[in-house]
Amino acid sequence: MTVRMLLNEDEIPRQWYNLAADLPTPLQPPLGPDGNPVTPEMLAPVFPMNLVEQEVSRERWIDIPEEVLDLLYRWRPSPLHRAKYLEAVLDTPARIYYKNESLSPAGSHKPNTAVAQAWYNKQFGVKKLATETGAGQWGSALAFACSLLGLECKVFMVRISFDQKPFRKIMMETWGANCIASPSDQTQAGREILAKHPHTPGSLGIAISEAVEAAVTDPAGETRYSLGSVLNHVVLHQTITGLESKKQLEKFGEKKVDVVIGCAGGGSNFAGLAFPFVLDKINGAEIDIIPVEPFSCPTLTAAPFVYDHGDTAKMTPLLPMFSLGHDFIPPPIHAGGLRYHGMSPLVSQTVVEGLCAPRAIHQIECYESAVLFARTEGIIIAPETSHAVAAAIQEAKKAKEEGKEKVIIFNLSGHGLMDLTGYQKYFDEELFDYALPEEDLQRSLKALEGLPKPSLAKTGRW
Amino acid sequence: MTVRMLLNEDEIPRQWYNLAADLPTPLQPPLGPDGNPVTPEMLAPVFPMNLVEQEVSRERWIDIPEEVLDLLYRWRPSPLHRAKYLEAVLDTPARIYYKNESLSPAGSHKPNTAVAQAWYNKQFGVKKLATETGAGQWGSALAFACSLLGLECKVFMVRISFDQKPFRKIMMETWGANCIASPSDQTQAGREILAKHPHTPGSLGIAISEAVEAAVTDPAGETRYSLGSVLNHVVLHQTITGLESKKQLEKFGEKKVDVVIGCAGGGSNFAGLAFPFVLDKINGAEIDIIPVEPFSCPTLTAAPFVYDHGDTAKMTPLLPMFSLGHDFIPPPIHAGGLRYHGMSPLVSQTVVEGLCAPRAIHQIECYESAVLFARTEGIIIAPETSHAVAAAIQEAKKAKEEGKEKVIIFNLSGHGLMDLTGYQKYFDEELFDYALPEEDLQRSLKALEGLPKPSLAKTGRW
Repeated sequence: MTVRMLLNEDEIPRQWYNLAADLPTPLQPPLGPDGNPVTPEMLAPVFPMNLVEQEVSRERWIDIPEEVLDLLYRWRPSPLHRAKYLEAVLDTPARIYYKNESLSPAGSHKPNTAVAQAWYNKQFGVKKLATETGAGQWGSALAFACSLLGLECKVFMVRISFDQKPFRKIMMETWGANCIASPSDQTQAGREILAKHPHTPGSLGIAISEAVEAAVTDPAGETRYSLGSVLNHVVLHQTITGLESKKQLEKFGEKKVDVVIGCAGGGSNFAGLAFPFVLDKINGAEIDIIPVEPFSCPTLTAAPFVYDHGDTAKMTPLLPMFSLGHDFIPPPIHAGGLRYHGMSPLVSQTVVEGLCAPRAIHQIECYESAVLFARTEGIIIAPETSHAVAAAIQEAKKAKEEGKEKVIIFNLSGHGLMDLTGYQKYFDEELFDYALPEEDLQRSLKALEGLPKPSLAKTGRW
Repeated sequence: MTVRMLLNEDEIPRQWYNLAADLPTPLQPPLGPDGNPVTPEMLAPVFPMNLVEQEVSRERWIDIPEEVLDLLYRWRPSPLHRAKYLEAVLDTPARIYYKNESLSPAGSHKPNTAVAQAWYNKQFGVKKLATETGAGQWGSALAFACSLLGLECKVFMVRISFDQKPFRKIMMETWGANCIASPSDQTQAGREILAKHPHTPGSLGIAISEAVEAAVTDPAGETRYSLGSVLNHVVLHQTITGLESKKQLEKFGEKKVDVVIGCAGGGSNFAGLAFPFVLDKINGAEIDIIPVEPFSCPTLTAAPFVYDHGDTAKMTPLLPMFSLGHDFIPPPIHAGGLRYHGMSPLVSQTVVEGLCAPRAIHQIECYESAVLFARTEGIIIAPETSHAVAAAIQEAKKAKEEGKEKVIIFNLSGHGLMDLTGYQKYFDEELFDYALPEEDLQRSLKALEGLPKPSLAKTGRW
């Protein structure tokens, strides 16, 4: 029985899908510090205008440039697997499929947007990209992409991860990037923090501030900033995974999909798989679409839909999204890529609309699921991905209870070979489940006071 | 332009190729301690009889069981890539191809034989496999395979690697294997060493002794030993890579191959790619076939063709092979998988026959090549694989000098994400090139005194 469906180069999708064209209620604009909408020109020092145009585009289908396809062909189309060994152990009538994004050279879905962003920047004459990275997945992917395109790349890596995960830094350097611990003495923002807190472990918020500063203060004007999730153009680039998956499901003989699942930190791997199915749902299909997040960082399941900054230092515009507050510091779970206070505005809007039904899962259940997956399907997944697997297992069990032959698909967003410590702690019974006390949430939401409020308009059709 | 050629499930080779059927002079038998040929029955406590039959088979084509194919389909057929970005930087008229074996769940070619061995053992009623591992590639692969087949797996990992590479151990445990540092107190061999040398860093020789002992002393008789390279049946299972590659080269439109390259430690990844081309050479094709080894462990390029033990403790039969002597301790290069004193008897015989032309390359040139490969083709390769890449680059430069449009293919045997320390040392200029002083070689070859000598018969046709 076929367990792995491939596509040839000539079957790759040649356009990205832009959900912003089809949202029942239009996406609300990002706002500046004065409460007025941010104009494309205001973003010009940060991003190249060709990507800013994508960010604000309402076109449904956006052509993937031939040269970007050439870059993607190195590892795409990626396989869609049938999880028949997991199904057998669960004794479920459900058929479970997973899109395997772990086979990219950087080991995750991140290069899908990294190579596109690097290409658009290069087209625009940019010579150097600056970015931040937490656990290192995004920094590795952008280093890889810049290497292929001959761009310089500077990655500000959160100090504690820089010290704890030296191998990620080596990956980036092997691809020619310059990876430095943040806070650093290379930016005003970094120097100020270091003066006050010389031994700080750093934070994603500080690293974003340094990367944006490095971009906008380049005296030659040849540097821009690059972000690995959250924004519309990033999510757009990821839709290739969902579009490929639809072709592959068809080749598997599936006519209907019942459940679509992805883990959600900033939202891009979830959106990449899910948005082409969200379009089907808008057009009348019955599909359960589930972004999965950690119980300890419950952005979509416990936080309000608000206008908030994307970073702790409040350097970014205000985005309409679910947010735990830009001061929120999530507990130290191993899924570093899901430890984010906000969420992609596009994903947020699908939740407001009722098109998606988010779910939060505890860390230990995620690791239980990851170990079962490794011992059935054979792949050791990233801690982030384990949230998607845990939800898929929940859905497969539900299908068994209901006696229904459901079709479930999830995004296997990355392998876990660079993040094995969490598995060790799981085996040693040293992992914890963290819940977020209501009073802590309320305290963190105080950071939102005085900020504008987005409209909660929704069609109510789902 | 197509840079990655896939094959569908129905295009997978359904038979392995056994070069022993076509060698111009027959393979000489392994010998026991008494100097007499080892009989299949003598191997019964160590290996299951179905694998012993493969080990001694002279059939040219051996069917791959359907159930083994089902296991391989999880990641096979693997892609064949055209290295057009590397070609461009080298400005070579050569067309360079690489078989990408780094995409298996364990990250290398090793699972090709691990799943086959685990399956044959299970068929034979074996419940548990014991093996040794140095750097951890083979232990991980066998843990993966045993997990898929529901076999118990015990891996004796050389103490120094066990301590230096904790992530490999976590991989094995995630797949349910029991990984213990060797020497251990679980075997007589281990206890004796520990009594004498309580702080020994261990060695592959000791670990083999412990694994074989664990197999043959199981009171229930349900344990067997498994080896990841060197032996005929292991090499046989790897030929699927060369057979797939031939189909893929044809799809790329190539009618002729000029150069075939693989790194060689025990010889299995080299042989897997090369042996189907060796058959072409026996049948008259002009092909340069190059096993590549470290300059510091020059088995094929500097050692004699002898009868020697496969392990330091002299527990294995005597094999007819090139050997630096079973006492030889290679310098601490990063390509742990190539630090072996001997070589597959089949590979050795192709060298005796002049069918293959081995080459030794220094460590620093290998890392230079690996970094160039990462920054052109985008894949961070294992230190072992860097030897194949270095030779491919040498050959591409030679083709440029000669002005010839050669077709070069090499085996990308594994990714380097679990072995990044060597890259860091390369960037920090802390790597060394090690040559083997003639007097050290002569000292190590003393271990061969008194052992029987193999025939050096060769047809001299190549």
